[in-house]
Amino acid sequence: MSTQAATAAARRSKITPERETELYEAVIRLLREGGYDAVTMEGVAALTKCGKATLYRQWGTKPQLVTAALAHRRCAFFTGIDTGSLAGDLREAARAAGSRRDRDVELMEAVSQAYTRHPDLRDALRATVIDPEVAALDEMLRRAVERGEIDADDPAAGFVAPCFLGMLRVERLFEERFADEAALRGLVDAVLLPALRVDG
Amino acid sequence: MSTQAATAAARRSKITPERETELYEAVIRLLREGGYDAVTMEGVAALTKCGKATLYRQWGTKPQLVTAALAHRRCAFFTGIDTGSLAGDLREAARAAGSRRDRDVELMEAVSQAYTRHPDLRDALRATVIDPEVAALDEMLRRAVERGEIDADDPAAGFVAPCFLGMLRVERLFEERFADEAALRGLVDAVLLPALRVDG
Repeated sequence: MSTQAATAAARRSKITPERETELYEAVIRLLREGGYDAVTMEGVAALTKCGKATLYRQWGTKPQLVTAALAHRRCAFFTGIDTGSLAGDLREAARAAGSRRDRDVELMEAVSQAYTRHPDLRDALRATVIDPEVAALDEMLRRAVERGEIDADDPAAGFVAPCFLGMLRVERLFEERFADEAALRGLVDAVLLPALRVDG
Repeated sequence: MSTQAATAAARRSKITPERETELYEAVIRLLREGGYDAVTMEGVAALTKCGKATLYRQWGTKPQLVTAALAHRRCAFFTGIDTGSLAGDLREAARAAGSRRDRDVELMEAVSQAYTRHPDLRDALRATVIDPEVAALDEMLRRAVERGEIDADDPAAGFVAPCFLGMLRVERLFEERFADEAALRGLVDAVLLPALRVDG
């Protein structure tokens, strides 16, 4: 945890987890209904009967509040997975992402749009949501190298995270939905493991 | 070409290609600056000094006009590629998408956002932009089956288009940009061809 994040967490510790969840849910509701521009500190304060000054003191800025709300909602799909083999880890990642991932397309699109237009949100989202997921996938690959399952310089390794995250997003173009567990499991079994020359 | 598209093209044939390009550029400008909601038949008419009735007569609806403008701008990356081998075809696709693809992130995000919220745009975009690209990739795989390069039921084949299109989109999460030719070429060489068990 960064110093900044630790300080913010210490400040937030003064409010109850229930209250924190309530505030985050208000942020998500505004975000889903009207996009990033519709989220305002005033709006969140009004919805939750929380003082605006408190919001600023606890979360600092709107992008930090939005990112905290998204991080709180999404959880981490890939963190903590360690089955003892790369095949097992990637299949568990497919299961976790396919079954628990946020299926609220409007919300994800609101975030995606904001991601491009608001660099401060982008930096906060990357640090709290994207980087940890990519790091967790990279950690699976690092352990596979340690176990001798793949070479340290395997050229396919760098594409595991982009393929996984790309599949999550692009299915919508074809099927009006994000990728489900079966699609992700297929990606692992038919593409990633063969490319890494790992037997299932 | 569908009957509907043929009819629309016949109607458009009454205006010059230069005029058509000018109208499309106005649509793209409005789209990039303010998103899909900022594009109106009135706005395009005003920018181009074209009668609103003419726009409706020639393109029918706003989603059809927007889709025509995007299709005109993007061209088809994968259509017409036929190098004689699957490895050659996919590498040429990487080159085409990496070097010619639209790098205007704001525009692509405006489209992506609208894609979810406006089903009529989605259907038009899918028919004119997405489906032809996927069909072109599928055609490369079909020829590879005919040549005996891959099996007809190769489990990796169905993931070529999602991986390719996913890679185009997801790189932005990591690098603030869409995937370039080197990244796409890496995907082909390190992941797709090994998964398909095709030698380069």
